[in-house]
Amino acid sequence: MNKLEQYIKENGKVINGEILKVDTFLNHQVDPALMKEIGENFYNYFKKYPINKVVTIETSGIAPALMCAACFGVPMVFIKKAVPSTMSDAYHAEVFSFTKNKTYHISVSKEFLSENDHILFIDDFLANGEAFLGVENICKEAKATIEGVGIVIDKAFQKGHQKIIDKGYDLCSLAQIAALDENGVHFLKEQ
Amino acid sequence: MNKLEQYIKENGKVINGEILKVDTFLNHQVDPALMKEIGENFYNYFKKYPINKVVTIETSGIAPALMCAACFGVPMVFIKKAVPSTMSDAYHAEVFSFTKNKTYHISVSKEFLSENDHILFIDDFLANGEAFLGVENICKEAKATIEGVGIVIDKAFQKGHQKIIDKGYDLCSLAQIAALDENGVHFLKEQ
Repeated sequence: MNKLEQYIKENGKVINGEILKVDTFLNHQVDPALMKEIGENFYNYFKKYPINKVVTIETSGIAPALMCAACFGVPMVFIKKAVPSTMSDAYHAEVFSFTKNKTYHISVSKEFLSENDHILFIDDFLANGEAFLGVENICKEAKATIEGVGIVIDKAFQKGHQKIIDKGYDLCSLAQIAALDENGVHFLKEQ
Repeated sequence: MNKLEQYIKENGKVINGEILKVDTFLNHQVDPALMKEIGENFYNYFKKYPINKVVTIETSGIAPALMCAACFGVPMVFIKKAVPSTMSDAYHAEVFSFTKNKTYHISVSKEFLSENDHILFIDDFLANGEAFLGVENICKEAKATIEGVGIVIDKAFQKGHQKIIDKGYDLCSLAQIAALDENGVHFLKEQ
């Protein structure tokens, strides 16, 4: 997806040669037109599957997941990082974050995930794949089917990409990063 | 907005006669078509102003704010409840939550708010208006102009509605709740 890679090249900042900051269009300030295009790209790739729900984890996955769900005409569910006082019956999982070096808790109300669901999981970043493993555990418990995984920015040099492929999931990453260094961002398929 | 009120009537749950739970279409599971309609409604109301940025607070404001920003063709900025390690220079404010009975911290990168900005603030709920006061403080510090306040569900029987009106802001609330009780939701303008 050229436009996204162009956005990343022009607006992304590499911090300490390892963290990619894209908060001008994805993680803090959000570009609605780009999110719409991202949503359409995921839709075109995954429309062959009987997706009836798009699932993400709060917060930065919400914008692309919403735009994608709008294309499918299905609900979007965002998995929560905190358990609200009003959530009575939920599926839970633990997720280890390498970036923050801590474990956080994710949960989704049992009302919104069941054996009848065919899920497309969307997230803003893929690094070590720990968030996906948490979502996979929750979906297994709910007996929901994960039909595909859509990632906006895939740090393909980290472990998550291969983990998801090895498990047999259909993974669509719109921008695949081969390396980050002091010179910036290098994509897997450079033009 | 009849469709939204109908959604609330049909799907909202009143808990303990005071909390309105709308997580089937707004706070956990999100209805993209409804969010699009909500975004269009805000756009039609506020298009007379020179809005160049739609601002919300994570998490549940993101979906309606994104759809509204898409109508305006401007960026959406979500104010964060935690300070990310990658955020170096930010505006901060404290917000007291009556629901959770605790104070939380909000912040926005100085990069995304300045004296050149004409803000439309969008949020999912308005109760006591504490979140808005935090956003107002941040905008004052950044010298940004708040052109309007768009609220999806306004608990008009609480203090926030009048606070915002008294300060002279143009407030557009798509559903105005007069009362919540064991019989359900009562709107201010019942059909």
